[in-house]
Amino acid sequence: MKNYKIYCGGEFLETKTILEVRNPYDNTLVATTYLAGKDILELAIDKALQVEKECQELPSYVKYRILMQIVHQLISKKKKLAEILSLESAKPIKYALGEIDRAIQTFTIAAEESKRLPKEYISLDLTAAGNRKEGFVKYFPLGLSAGISPFNFPMNLAVHKIAPAIATGCSMILKPSRSTPLSTLELAMIIDETDLPKGAISIFPMDRQSGNQLVTDERFKLLTFTGSPEVGWKMRTDAKKKKTILELGGNAGVIIAKTCDFDMAVKRCLMGAFAYSGQVCIHAQRIYVEKEIFEEFKEKFIAGARALKAGHPLDTNTDISSMIDEGNAIRVEEWVQEAVNQGAELLIGGKRDGSYYEPTVLTNTNEKMKVSSLEVFGPVVTLEPYSDFDDAVKQVNNSNYGLQAGVFTNNIMEMDLAFNELDVGGVILNDVPTFRVDNMPYGGVKDSGMGREGVKYAIRDMMEAKVLVKPY
Amino acid sequence: MKNYKIYCGGEFLETKTILEVRNPYDNTLVATTYLAGKDILELAIDKALQVEKECQELPSYVKYRILMQIVHQLISKKKKLAEILSLESAKPIKYALGEIDRAIQTFTIAAEESKRLPKEYISLDLTAAGNRKEGFVKYFPLGLSAGISPFNFPMNLAVHKIAPAIATGCSMILKPSRSTPLSTLELAMIIDETDLPKGAISIFPMDRQSGNQLVTDERFKLLTFTGSPEVGWKMRTDAKKKKTILELGGNAGVIIAKTCDFDMAVKRCLMGAFAYSGQVCIHAQRIYVEKEIFEEFKEKFIAGARALKAGHPLDTNTDISSMIDEGNAIRVEEWVQEAVNQGAELLIGGKRDGSYYEPTVLTNTNEKMKVSSLEVFGPVVTLEPYSDFDDAVKQVNNSNYGLQAGVFTNNIMEMDLAFNELDVGGVILNDVPTFRVDNMPYGGVKDSGMGREGVKYAIRDMMEAKVLVKPY
Amino acid sequence: MKNYKIYCGGEFLETKTILEVRNPYDNTLVATTYLAGKDILELAIDKALQVEKECQELPSYVKYRILMQIVHQLISKKKKLAEILSLESAKPIKYALGEIDRAIQTFTIAAEESKRLPKEYISLDLTAAGNRKEGFVKYFPLGLSAGISPFNFPMNLAVHKIAPAIATGCSMILKPSRSTPLSTLELAMIIDETDLPKGAISIFPMDRQSGNQLVTDERFKLLTFTGSPEVGWKMRTDAKKKKTILELGGNAGVIIAKTCDFDMAVKRCLMGAFAYSGQVCIHAQRIYVEKEIFEEFKEKFIAGARALKAGHPLDTNTDISSMIDEGNAIRVEEWVQEAVNQGAELLIGGKRDGSYYEPTVLTNTNEKMKVSSLEVFGPVVTLEPYSDFDDAVKQVNNSNYGLQAGVFTNNIMEMDLAFNELDVGGVILNDVPTFRVDNMPYGGVKDSGMGREGVKYAIRDMMEAKVLVKPY
Amino acid sequence: MKNYKIYCGGEFLETKTILEVRNPYDNTLVATTYLAGKDILELAIDKALQVEKECQELPSYVKYRILMQIVHQLISKKKKLAEILSLESAKPIKYALGEIDRAIQTFTIAAEESKRLPKEYISLDLTAAGNRKEGFVKYFPLGLSAGISPFNFPMNLAVHKIAPAIATGCSMILKPSRSTPLSTLELAMIIDETDLPKGAISIFPMDRQSGNQLVTDERFKLLTFTGSPEVGWKMRTDAKKKKTILELGGNAGVIIAKTCDFDMAVKRCLMGAFAYSGQVCIHAQRIYVEKEIFEEFKEKFIAGARALKAGHPLDTNTDISSMIDEGNAIRVEEWVQEAVNQGAELLIGGKRDGSYYEPTVLTNTNEKMKVSSLEVFGPVVTLEPYSDFDDAVKQVNNSNYGLQAGVFTNNIMEMDLAFNELDVGGVILNDVPTFRVDNMPYGGVKDSGMGREGVKYAIRDMMEAKVLVKPY
Repeated sequence: MKNYKIYCGGEFLETKTILEVRNPYDNTLVATTYLAGKDILELAIDKALQVEKECQELPSYVKYRILMQIVHQLISKKKKLAEILSLESAKPIKYALGEIDRAIQTFTIAAEESKRLPKEYISLDLTAAGNRKEGFVKYFPLGLSAGISPFNFPMNLAVHKIAPAIATGCSMILKPSRSTPLSTLELAMIIDETDLPKGAISIFPMDRQSGNQLVTDERFKLLTFTGSPEVGWKMRTDAKKKKTILELGGNAGVIIAKTCDFDMAVKRCLMGAFAYSGQVCIHAQRIYVEKEIFEEFKEKFIAGARALKAGHPLDTNTDISSMIDEGNAIRVEEWVQEAVNQGAELLIGGKRDGSYYEPTVLTNTNEKMKVSSLEVFGPVVTLEPYSDFDDAVKQVNNSNYGLQAGVFTNNIMEMDLAFNELDVGGVILNDVPTFRVDNMPYGGVKDSGMGREGVKYAIRDMMEAKVLVKPY
Repeated sequence: MKNYKIYCGGEFLETKTILEVRNPYDNTLVATTYLAGKDILELAIDKALQVEKECQELPSYVKYRILMQIVHQLISKKKKLAEILSLESAKPIKYALGEIDRAIQTFTIAAEESKRLPKEYISLDLTAAGNRKEGFVKYFPLGLSAGISPFNFPMNLAVHKIAPAIATGCSMILKPSRSTPLSTLELAMIIDETDLPKGAISIFPMDRQSGNQLVTDERFKLLTFTGSPEVGWKMRTDAKKKKTILELGGNAGVIIAKTCDFDMAVKRCLMGAFAYSGQVCIHAQRIYVEKEIFEEFKEKFIAGARALKAGHPLDTNTDISSMIDEGNAIRVEEWVQEAVNQGAELLIGGKRDGSYYEPTVLTNTNEKMKVSSLEVFGPVVTLEPYSDFDDAVKQVNNSNYGLQAGVFTNNIMEMDLAFNELDVGGVILNDVPTFRVDNMPYGGVKDSGMGREGVKYAIRDMMEAKVLVKPY
Repeated sequence: MKNYKIYCGGEFLETKTILEVRNPYDNTLVATTYLAGKDILELAIDKALQVEKECQELPSYVKYRILMQIVHQLISKKKKLAEILSLESAKPIKYALGEIDRAIQTFTIAAEESKRLPKEYISLDLTAAGNRKEGFVKYFPLGLSAGISPFNFPMNLAVHKIAPAIATGCSMILKPSRSTPLSTLELAMIIDETDLPKGAISIFPMDRQSGNQLVTDERFKLLTFTGSPEVGWKMRTDAKKKKTILELGGNAGVIIAKTCDFDMAVKRCLMGAFAYSGQVCIHAQRIYVEKEIFEEFKEKFIAGARALKAGHPLDTNTDISSMIDEGNAIRVEEWVQEAVNQGAELLIGGKRDGSYYEPTVLTNTNEKMKVSSLEVFGPVVTLEPYSDFDDAVKQVNNSNYGLQAGVFTNNIMEMDLAFNELDVGGVILNDVPTFRVDNMPYGGVKDSGMGREGVKYAIRDMMEAKVLVKPY
Repeated sequence: MKNYKIYCGGEFLETKTILEVRNPYDNTLVATTYLAGKDILELAIDKALQVEKECQELPSYVKYRILMQIVHQLISKKKKLAEILSLESAKPIKYALGEIDRAIQTFTIAAEESKRLPKEYISLDLTAAGNRKEGFVKYFPLGLSAGISPFNFPMNLAVHKIAPAIATGCSMILKPSRSTPLSTLELAMIIDETDLPKGAISIFPMDRQSGNQLVTDERFKLLTFTGSPEVGWKMRTDAKKKKTILELGGNAGVIIAKTCDFDMAVKRCLMGAFAYSGQVCIHAQRIYVEKEIFEEFKEKFIAGARALKAGHPLDTNTDISSMIDEGNAIRVEEWVQEAVNQGAELLIGGKRDGSYYEPTVLTNTNEKMKVSSLEVFGPVVTLEPYSDFDDAVKQVNNSNYGLQAGVFTNNIMEMDLAFNELDVGGVILNDVPTFRVDNMPYGGVKDSGMGREGVKYAIRDMMEAKVLVKPY
């Protein structure tokens, strides 16, 4: 049985608290590691502060080299990393491989952006007081940062914090999810082999008290959190003076207009709805279909859902496996039951087996049902017809959340209406809200968060402007 | 009878050669002014070089003040200026008023951009050789510039040269068209009242030899020319070491797809085809209509053309007046006759009365006819059906020119195809190629020119980068 | 006696609570106005939400027109506005005139920036998943915003909130200081005459409960506060989900190196130290002088301080008048006394007369004295010698604050060291930290705040990105 | 003996005209290759046009992959490539290795920039005519390009044309110098192994007639030339409608002020003056030293020049080897002799041995001597004292050329004066004009050229804007 030491201050350590990581699919033990407490966290903070200045002053050619060293290792260990990720999270291997590919991409973009950190040269002579004066705006890393990443993309969502931290010269202590710490601990081993100053990045799962300290300790200048809305907004208040980036979830909507490419829409919606059992921040949860094509869409979509293959995450044929734990599967079961009790029609699915929950499609839902109004974070989707595009936009907007939305149409006016009126961080034309490329600005409005990731955007949030005003 | 002195080196002068400016509509004398020769040009060059350094060093708050002084004067003299412009060019007063509005806009944008001249602060530490080095890129005005502007927008196309020249700190000698020098001489009087160093801008019509000297004299660092393709490309060769911006013409195409807003398309095409008798660089010359709506379009378009009111340019009801001179009207008449002789069908128009030429619509044309392949620069348009959007794009591209094109559609894929495949400087969606806002990049590909105007873009072409590499 | 109605939801209203505004110099009544409570605030919120969509959709040419209407009115009422501002705040009239000039500048920049709101067109084909996809990033106004502005620049610091709000299309409720509400109520009358939708901007002083509601009410999407650090950081925690911009104070340092222009340094330091009795966020509070020139600097500086003319704020000869109230003057008196008791040497000043406090210079101070470690916000400055530039930088950094710093030197290496090592938002070369032009990024690090003002920078903070991902 | 086929249209071909490449140091045959004529050029043009569309549409992830494939091959073949380059050009191996490093850097930057091609999203609603309209500016590759590169940096100056061509999607036919074609033919073999469409890049030396055709043939849309001023400016006139980038030479000046780091200045000036026998566009040709330190500088500089080790280019101890050919050495000898005849004092050097010319230092020169006024392109430098910085700037500017200048000083005012007043493309602070990092904008003013290289800047010159104007 493999045992993973945790990565603290440039060293691989053990603690007294063993943490077992089990495959949610069959509860087999994947590996053991350790939970860190306050002492480990203090050590990590100390080491990070010691190298803070060194990190800040790394020239970009060194940061590029470090980040590309990571890229090359991720490429060479891709299969192994995907398997570990698949086992710890019950993510089907085909998606796990895709996630490693995206982590490679995220580090590559960060490597390139490390040479292109923001800098501005501005005129100040727009007024007599500024005559023959000019300004130079340089951005400096905020310094010690705390990162908290979730179980659902254990690698790439951690990388979206670590990679820009290295690119900017921030040091970071990253807390992965307790359920899925192994892929980031593998990453820790890769990072440790690079030229990055030891202690610049620490990675370890923590007990609750230490996790809280990431939020409250004033030595951290930045908190970047990806997780659930309730936890996130609470942190923002507790974070006091530190800058806070929140990447939270939602109940993303999709609109399918009759002018769209129908087959492509069905295919992409199946992916958006059921990939990784819907445990995705931008999971396609609510689908609105123009009424002329609703019945046909419903039929094809159900057929598609029925064809999905459930199974062991490492099986390359598996489309859908278990959810992260039985507790969540039970919660989803209850929400679906509640919806059916309140009049929703169950088109397919609705059954649970331990931590596995079937691909489930509901119709006749309403905005008061939890499956519609809350973030279901499970393989459940609602399907409703609409007769007017404007109205479909309003329904998508009828939510406390606003991360991304998908719109399938070939009509320019619908495209423009969607872009201008949907209250979300991203509108994905002719694809599901689940679409993301790692250099695009990504993040939510309303209760879905604040700040944007997407390497270049995260970099800006991790740096602070300083201006030099100079006569010439 | 009003007499205009010419504006040279900060003074209003007379020469021995009187230039009569006549209204093309009725040949009445509008005013007299003077043609300049070599001696005047030398004087203007001398004065411009004397103040070159002063212009270059004007702080932006002074340049803003100067440009806004011009804006305020243009606003207060708008009606008078439009009338002069209308009379000298036979441009209907409603369009003349619009042109003054645009000149106001162009100067306003230039005033604002004078505070936002390009500047870059760049990282150089992407390699060990650049470790702890950084770069500052500042743009400096090229210096003495020659501007040559045409008769068809005697004010605003001159302003697109003068305004960015002032904004950047270049000095400029502007040669307006001999036919229409009055509006720019009015502008000269306005400029003379501002805080601009005397001699920074000179404006006067010139004899041929002096006009050539603008192109060949090495003391000019920039030549910016708006006019016909043949003249323009010849100048480029003669310009030797000086930077050259060419804003030439074309035979712009329009595509009308069946998903478009039909009535709007008809209305805008009438404007694009016949405004100022088609004497517009981005005149809508070739209209391709999807075959399902071709007949209806043809009918409505002819009805619209028939309804246009011909008359004296100062009459506010006039839609179309004379062309700039009889020579051009005769040329257009011959081209239309040639097309008809070669099999084109004349749907409306085709008659000439002195320098007036009727709104004319042809169909059954082909690419070899002059009305199709050359720049007609008259109130003539060809109307052809198409069955396939791709093919319509190819027909628009089947030209030596590429300035702008219009596409009326509500289909996203057609929009994208048009944007990516049309070989032009600008694709105007749901409007005619004739559309222009004065801050957009404007200019042609293929034989239609090189360089872009649109204030910010012209500014870049009028400045040159200098980098400071500095250790830190 | 002039009475000012408050500006709420597009109407000028009275309330039951009269607020007397008195000249701090002689306690004479300047004018009366009203204090608003919860009912007024609710009314303002309602009206603002009603016009939220309209504001968001204003085209930039309308926003420009509105903002320039304000500019023109400010120019024409400049003298009157400066007098009111001078009277309510005891700011010497010469500085009050300068503040109106700056407000004019701030609105002008906002007018221009309203046409240049951020927009990005990005490539997404850096990975196969993004093949033939592209992204459009458009920024949308956050919506209803709360602004809280301080007494010390009652006009321009309010304008730094209102002007970008109008430019972006945010609506705003602004709470001016109770001591100095009159200049912004004058501004309200100007705004009311423009084409801005009624209710988009409300301006009124509030009771404590309503002031708190600005911070806690979730209908506000943004809180922008300029004021003291303690109040500001508390608000940040109370603001919950809303975006928060804090422009707080500091104890700015200045370094005077021997290679500098000595006379200019003395002159500018006198301004930075004593202008408006040091009641300026970027007041030059701690001056470090290279030891070779320390004695001479001390002598000249004291002579300069002695020559400052105290008097009535409206007297054009007045250099320094009363502080905002006696409470603050007493506080400053106590801090100076504490410093002297702990060993500081009083070089000049130190006496109080009611709310007037003399220009005061101390030496032999240390970092534990309040006059050194806290924000004195009064006409007090410490003067200390240094022998090593590095060390001077460390002393400036030895503070909880970090707004701006001034450095007088002609040495390139010192310039670079200062820029790279000073922990502040702005380094002002060869001028005092008190220097500000209204388009430069302005804001603090450490306890001095978060976010940047400076129109373009405030605009970014008032908007949120939305991306359209589109295949092509 | 190695024989290199030439690379035309994706194939390695032979022609009837054999070209012998000899080591200038000892005239030994390094390898043979072929000279191409019109038939080969036609073939290359045909193939390039066939793949033009394919190149234009390559997604950036493919362009990145291609460019990084080249990078990896250059890294792995670095030593071999440097040796070939050293032998064909007589460039000392230590400099040849540096050149391969820079080529690696140039391709890496291009790989990254291929994902960041310029794109703009602009507002058009600054006027009522643009209400609810927006613009998208996309840049498209110009298409078939002709590149002509010189002997002195046979690899990296060719790469500065080829790498941005691939990044933008332009196809290119590159003519290397006849003297030094081997390193680019090695590069051709590397390129041929990548996924680049065959025919996109062709590389071969040409006879005079074919070389001329690169300039005059209208199928080429761009000519990018690096070489001598006389040839370059002639080409510009012959190039007719095609865009032309000229990277020409100069007689770069250096200013050494007394506040500088003296030892560093001496050391860097020796490099700038004598590296690769001064056959560098930004060779430090004229050194102006502040009079207080002139004598000491002269002494140390002469001592440094004396210590340079002459020898075989492959010897790692060699500092200076032969010039490119005896003709050039003779020309330099004559120019030096002319200067001495006219009163210049020869401080060291002045002797020729075949194609080897000694490091040579002159003083008492004047602006009329060829060694001062023309581009010496040899190991000759003039050394003159100055008493006033302003005057030194004027002397540097007293030239028809303006590529780069070096300024050694620690004085801020001198730095600013140099940046603002030197008429050059780049001012290098505290280093010689010879300094270049491959991402900085690089190019000359006055007779030194037009346009800028430096990957991102070259990319802009190789693309053309197209705007989509769209209602929304």
